[in-house]
Amino acid sequence: MVITSLENEKVKGLVKLQKKKYRDLEGRYVVEGDHLVLEAYKAGVVLELFILEGEGYSYDTSVTFVSYEVMKKITVMETVPRIVALCKKNDSGEILGRRILLLDELQDPGNLGTIIRSAVAFNIDTIILSENAVDLYNPKVLRATQGMYNYVNIIRMNSHDAIARLKDLEITVYGTNVSRGVDVRSLSSDAKTNFCLVMGNEGNGVRLDVQEMCDKNLYIKMNDNVESLNVGVACSILLYELS
Amino acid sequence: MVITSLENEKVKGLVKLQKKKYRDLEGRYVVEGDHLVLEAYKAGVVLELFILEGEGYSYDTSVTFVSYEVMKKITVMETVPRIVALCKKNDSGEILGRRILLLDELQDPGNLGTIIRSAVAFNIDTIILSENAVDLYNPKVLRATQGMYNYVNIIRMNSHDAIARLKDLEITVYGTNVSRGVDVRSLSSDAKTNFCLVMGNEGNGVRLDVQEMCDKNLYIKMNDNVESLNVGVACSILLYELS
Repeated sequence: MVITSLENEKVKGLVKLQKKKYRDLEGRYVVEGDHLVLEAYKAGVVLELFILEGEGYSYDTSVTFVSYEVMKKITVMETVPRIVALCKKNDSGEILGRRILLLDELQDPGNLGTIIRSAVAFNIDTIILSENAVDLYNPKVLRATQGMYNYVNIIRMNSHDAIARLKDLEITVYGTNVSRGVDVRSLSSDAKTNFCLVMGNEGNGVRLDVQEMCDKNLYIKMNDNVESLNVGVACSILLYELS
Repeated sequence: MVITSLENEKVKGLVKLQKKKYRDLEGRYVVEGDHLVLEAYKAGVVLELFILEGEGYSYDTSVTFVSYEVMKKITVMETVPRIVALCKKNDSGEILGRRILLLDELQDPGNLGTIIRSAVAFNIDTIILSENAVDLYNPKVLRATQGMYNYVNIIRMNSHDAIARLKDLEITVYGTNVSRGVDVRSLSSDAKTNFCLVMGNEGNGVRLDVQEMCDKNLYIKMNDNVESLNVGVACSILLYELS
């Protein structure tokens, strides 16, 4: 049995999930292509696979075959994938571990994806996305993570509530400021086992009221001609230095 | 006198420069918006400014006013800028200094822009772009550099020729490989004064024959779950560590 109708209810359901509103409402999302599907499967978040008719995969889960036209309708990629997975969101709601990253109002999907990869590379336990940050389940974010979002606890929480909670947990909160504060190179190895790094928005950095809640500010020493680094780069260097 | 005709020769000349072919042919390019124009002006590469009629700027150089419709035609940005500058390219053709970055077949404009910012931040003397790397004067690259391309010597050269020249100059050439080689953290401070770091393409890394010409491979220690970092991030961390 192959779905060939664009009016099929399952197809319409998948297309809806291209919009954040429906992903939020249903707690579900879609990943596309071999690599992301494999990572989602390994993470146990796949609800159902949709495979192009004629393609062979050996996943042990619910599978539906679809025509090329249907796959083209479902996908947001330019190249039509051979497989997509309907997945369930996974938000523990809890700050786990003591190596934390808080992203305050980060907007660019590519930056978030890049940062998630770096956070996993440098052993972050929990990533907190502020309420207005870009949606983790945005297809561009998921692609840019290369599936790495499955390897770290990612939660959504208001930045102020998050910092209050971190203080209860006695986790040191590091703001980031281009010039003021402490050179990250001078941190002791003790400091690297119990921290939350706060990164801000692409254009404006960390919001002032959030900045004020931080225990210290970190900066990366660099040439005076440069006002700032790309936020994904700055965050990654700080995480590298804190690893 | 305000240019209002889309058929004006100057306007047609600027529009042509949206294409690499004409930028290469004429050795000229266009930058858009206050910040990039200011940086180009400070660098002394501006040939002529084109300003939206009614706007006031106090640059001491040749200025032409244009109508909104003309500016809309010239720009590649979504938001129509108030000012653009026609600039002359600046390729010294020479490897200057002893802290070098070679980008072998890098393709993404955003990545190149980000890397140029990081290279200036961490005091690189010369960036070598291989023949097939993305064009420096692509508007997306220029924007992503935030004008920083004016603060470093950037030349275009075949990777093999470049490495041969670097060897003549007795500059150590570091390839990059995800796992093989030397942990960048273990480099001595001597190693950081005389090097060329080679970064590769987004998908494939450094080409094998280029890799083979390198003296050593560097890697960044990270979690085993992560196959690779974003190339802009990896390059920036290595430059940071080499600074």
